Order: sequence, then structure tokens, then C-alpha cells
Amino acid sequence: MRKLETCFSPALYEPGLHSGSMVVVIDILRATTSICTAFLHGAETIIPVSTVEEAREYKRKGYLVAAERDGYVLDFADFGNSPFNFTPDKVAGKTIVYSTTNGTGIINLASSGNEIVIGSFLNITALSEWLSKKEKDVVLFCAGWKNRFNLEDTICAGAIAEKLMATSLYTTNCDSTTAAIDLWSLAKGNLPGYIEKVAQQTRLWSKGLGDCIEYCLTQDFTRVIPVFEDGVLRLIDIDI
Amino acid sequence: MRKLETCFSPALYEPGLHSGSMVVVIDILRATTSICTAFLHGAETIIPVSTVEEAREYKRKGYLVAAERDGYVLDFADFGNSPFNFTPDKVAGKTIVYSTTNGTGIINLASSGNEIVIGSFLNITALSEWLSKKEKDVVLFCAGWKNRFNLEDTICAGAIAEKLMATSLYTTNCDSTTAAIDLWSLAKGNLPGYIEKVAQQTRLWSKGLGDCIEYCLTQDFTRVIPVFEDGVLRLIDIDI
Repeated sequence: MRKLETCFSPALYEPGLHSGSMVVVIDILRATTSICTAFLHGAETIIPVSTVEEAREYKRKGYLVAAERDGYVLDFADFGNSPFNFTPDKVAGKTIVYSTTNGTGIINLASSGNEIVIGSFLNITALSEWLSKKEKDVVLFCAGWKNRFNLEDTICAGAIAEKLMATSLYTTNCDSTTAAIDLWSLAKGNLPGYIEKVAQQTRLWSKGLGDCIEYCLTQDFTRVIPVFEDGVLRLIDIDI
Repeated sequence: MRKLETCFSPALYEPGLHSGSMVVVIDILRATTSICTAFLHGAETIIPVSTVEEAREYKRKGYLVAAERDGYVLDFADFGNSPFNFTPDKVAGKTIVYSTTNGTGIINLASSGNEIVIGSFLNITALSEWLSKKEKDVVLFCAGWKNRFNLEDTICAGAIAEKLMATSLYTTNCDSTTAAIDLWSLAKGNLPGYIEKVAQQTRLWSKGLGDCIEYCLTQDFTRVIPVFEDGVLRLIDIDI
């Protein structure tokens, strides 16, 4: 049996422990939702960078840069972190350098010795089906918020975990996975209602950035599966 | 309004952030349950120590030492971590030096700038009533398991959080607290059934140490409130 584990925060990530696994990076509000959107709209590749300095250096070199901290677009960037920024006219055929508060850093953190794939509600069924065809342990890696636990990434992890456990191909002895599945069981009947309890939606609305939340909770909007290879995210074009 | 926060693991603890708070240390299976039991049975003080070496040094000096790692009693210790070890004949009137895998270390970790109190299902109502009489923010600090999230501490945190929020004296904008309350809402109707999902109960049973689990889930077995002051745990004798 393959093992299924969940990690709630970068502060809880243990690189050695998860070596050789498929790591699903989840940052629902908003990085991994935006990455899925960018590929859906024709982006060629995305280079996730951890620091503001790296993003600025790429901008100097002429790259298209999406970059934010705490919800605010960085002054040198072309646009910020809302999935609504990644429109076909801006991203089709392009390489995008991308840096956000939580999500993009952990892609680099998790990449050592593992295969990385991007998860969101948008691609949840296609992703789960693709994972189940891989003969690998899976780690659901929630970006959290500034190293803390957050609910929106956890319930998405729970939704993916529920699908994977239903295949009977996985086993888990991980309390985080059990908790994520249980929290998803409470949320799934009324996702827009449940999300009102989430701290990050309050933060986004307070900054006038809440308009994308409903979109970020849309299940199966696309079947894109972005993977991280050789320092860049690219789309696996599958038809499963 | 007082703030209520929950921390799922020592790896997530941010000392500066919580400065000046009441910190409730929770390690249900088994350290904080055992501490409550020891005081119920007449212990005078408990000295929590983080390392095996410290515990061994206290033993050399003639102290009564309870010490375990991964469930196993350390060879030099008088007894281990089961609450059933802390019987009146062994602990009444005594000072006990205590070192466990997860729980005792975080008492020292959290003590800087904060008041520390010991929480368990055993003392949950007395503790919650006592906290609500304090004009302080509260942090529910789960010991977890080897820096990871665990369910048993989380549902106890959720049970305490539910009681505190019911007083209308607290506010929370902390997803960990929301998740803990939600998980408690799933667990409380059938606590023995819910606990079967918990990884630590599997670990304890596999080592022949599961006999205390039912006891560790007993709500309101006692009204003792152990606090940590000047390097030792002592009982606050209250009648509320």
C-alpha cells in the first residue's frame, strides 16, 4: 500500500521523511489556484521564486513577473496574485516568474528528492486520478499562512485525501490526514458558508481582494496538472 | 475582548507572539493527564525536565523520577508516563522529576513571559472556569507528537475552546482554534469511537500501553489546576 500523509505548514515539513514521494503543494488563496489558472490560459512555464530580490532580478532581465506580499502587488511586478490577473492575453505562450507570500517558497522547499505537483480545487479530480496512477506515496503539503495552519488549504487536502483513500490504494496513519478529511466532511456540504470562518478570507476582503474567493473554491474547473521540474512549473498535458 | 489562539505543535509555537498570555499545555496521551493525576493523588510539586540527561542527574541526587521516551520507561527512572503509575502511595507529599517525549519539554518552551497551566480532559471544566476569571489572552498549546500535529490534543483544545467561546469573553481569528472546535464537534458524541482514528492510541496499544486511554479521555475527573511557576509545577487549590 502507498502511504498518504498531510503536512499543515512549511514549519512542519520534514524533507528526509518524505523523500521519494509525490508532493502536492496546496495554496488555495491564492497561489496554486492562480498557477492552475495560468496554465489553463496558455502559460508556457512558471518560475516560482522564494524571495522578492529574485523576482526583482528576473524583472530586470525582462521577464513577466507576478509578485505579491501580504496581498499587495510589489511595485516592480507586472501584476499580483489574483487568479483573475492570469488572463489569456497576458499569459498565453509566456514564461511567468511568480513570487507570493506563502505558496511559491514551499515549491522550492519541497522539491529536494521529490516530484512536485500543484493542487487546488480547480483541478482536484484530474489531479487525484493522476496521482492514483502513480505508484508513489503522496504528501499533501499545505502552504498555510506565514508558517501557520490554515483551514482553506486543509479542507482541500481533505478533499484530495478523501478521493485517494476511496481508491483503496493508500493507507494513512497520519493524524493530519484524518483531521483534514474530517474537516472536509464538515465543509463540503456548504463550502461558501464554511469558508466564512477562514481567517484568510477576512484578510482578503479587508484589502479589497475577496472577489476571487468563490472562484478559488470551484471544483473541477480544469484538468490541468502543473508539475515542477528542473526549476520550472510546466503543464502535463494528459487526457485521463 | 481577550484573544484565543491554538498552537498544534512546538514547531508552530511563536514565543514573542504569545507573550503575556495564559498558555494551556495539553498532552492528553499522556503527560498532562498524568500531571493532573499526580496532583489529585497528593503530589507536592513536579519538576518537568526536557532532556534525559537532566532527569538522570536528578535521579543521582535522590529525586523520585518519572521518565519515558516513546512510551518506554527509562532504565534509571522510578516509573514511566502512565497516569496509573502516579498512585497516592508513590506520589503523595513528594516532588517528582518528570520527563516525557513531547509534553514536558514544551512546558519549559512556553514559559518565557507567560503563565503556564496544565490542561487535560480530567480537569477541563475547572480549568475553563478558572481561565475565564483571568483577564488574559489564552493560547491552547498542543504538545503534538514529535513536533507533528496530533488529534487527541487538538480535540481537547477544541473542547476547552468551545467552553471559553461560550462565555463570550473571547474572540478568535485563528484557523487552528476553528479547526479544533470543529474536530471536537465531530468527536464529542462518541469520544472512545473517535479516538480509534488517532495514531497515538495505535502506538500505545502496540506497546501494551493502551490500558490508560479510556481514563485519559475522562472529562471532569478532578478539579486540580497545576500551574508552572519558578521552574516547578504546583497545584492551585481552588474551589470555584
